[in-house]
Amino acid sequence: MAGEIEKKLHELGITLPTPMAPIANYVPFVRSGDLVFVSGQVPAVDGKIAVTGKVGDGLSIEQGQQAARLCFINVLVHLKTATGGDLDLVRQVVRLGGFIAAPAAFTQHAQVMNGASDLAVAVFGAAGRHARTTIGVPSLPADAAVEVDGIFRIA
Amino acid sequence: MAGEIEKKLHELGITLPTPMAPIANYVPFVRSGDLVFVSGQVPAVDGKIAVTGKVGDGLSIEQGQQAARLCFINVLVHLKTATGGDLDLVRQVVRLGGFIAAPAAFTQHAQVMNGASDLAVAVFGAAGRHARTTIGVPSLPADAAVEVDGIFRIA
Amino acid sequence: MAGEIEKKLHELGITLPTPMAPIANYVPFVRSGDLVFVSGQVPAVDGKIAVTGKVGDGLSIEQGQQAARLCFINVLVHLKTATGGDLDLVRQVVRLGGFIAAPAAFTQHAQVMNGASDLAVAVFGAAGRHARTTIGVPSLPADAAVEVDGIFRIA
Repeated sequence: MAGEIEKKLHELGITLPTPMAPIANYVPFVRSGDLVFVSGQVPAVDGKIAVTGKVGDGLSIEQGQQAARLCFINVLVHLKTATGGDLDLVRQVVRLGGFIAAPAAFTQHAQVMNGASDLAVAVFGAAGRHARTTIGVPSLPADAAVEVDGIFRIA
Repeated sequence: MAGEIEKKLHELGITLPTPMAPIANYVPFVRSGDLVFVSGQVPAVDGKIAVTGKVGDGLSIEQGQQAARLCFINVLVHLKTATGGDLDLVRQVVRLGGFIAAPAAFTQHAQVMNGASDLAVAVFGAAGRHARTTIGVPSLPADAAVEVDGIFRIA
Repeated sequence: MAGEIEKKLHELGITLPTPMAPIANYVPFVRSGDLVFVSGQVPAVDGKIAVTGKVGDGLSIEQGQQAARLCFINVLVHLKTATGGDLDLVRQVVRLGGFIAAPAAFTQHAQVMNGASDLAVAVFGAAGRHARTTIGVPSLPADAAVEVDGIFRIA
């Protein structure tokens, strides 16, 4: 029987893909007590990064938001593994980190990162309201346009 | 009756403003157990960002330090809400993250971030001595010159 | 009698230097419960930063990896202090943050950060497998090429 969060994902038209292995010598998440630390995720779809380049220099705000949303979907993939497959065990989205590949003149990082934050709230409701730090970066691994990591409290 | 930390703030000539709402879909802090995660704060005064641009390219080290200090004051605003109004319940400034908007040739990030760190120690004494990570960034939300976030342990 | 981790470091030919004081008003680590937060470390050797400049613009991937490895050695130095000198008390490398000074066109951040991650796994084995967030930055304190911070769970 699908859990509440799985139903919500279904309503949102989101199918969580198979977890993708990290591209280097680390793991997608570590649990410590009731906190789960999820590694920085890129906007990968079917093992390929779907949104590359710089937001505000070739990519629009909307493309950046879509990238942030894809990053958060990949965060969810690993969070699901961390909860033994039951996302209903997530008690709180504690903190998201948002890294936006953008030029020095860019100023709309917050709007871009909302692509991840809005999905967090759409999926988890009140428990999805999180602390957040969003910054610009010159470049990201494999030319990803956005990277998102997260800390979660689980039951 | 004012608490010890409020007295210290008064001695330092600091009045904590009314909390400013985040400029996007997230919350200013999340508590998990005895840890409080405060979202990245910009150098806002009265709802406007007081220090914009790049440190080392238009802005001096001193202006950067002032920006970092303002960021930390905004961190304190939300930390006060997190403690139900009583900053004396703060047991430890655990970690500060410092993000300095600066060009590639800039090297004095540590001095800039001291604007936040020095205030943390001035306000909280020994409990204000924190772990810290400071980096340069090409750009920050709304052209802020500095952004600071924090993790705190509270009673 | 040397502990297991000290033996492993010896096998790897690594001698942990004397802890270097932070270059500003903060401390190298803070413990909160069973978590230790280690401040961002630069590739310093004998008190001087051994690898400066930008990876992918003057510095090779290999030089960047060596810088990341040196950063993690400095993380270990402070982690040893945090455990009262007994690194065998480290239960888990929870999360590493990797900051690679690099130009906008750089894409191989993950390979660079492996210089730190590979050492974490070589030293701690299964407990060394960590969550990780790696990003590019335009500049770092004192022109360091790489900076690494960490969160650890200890006994």
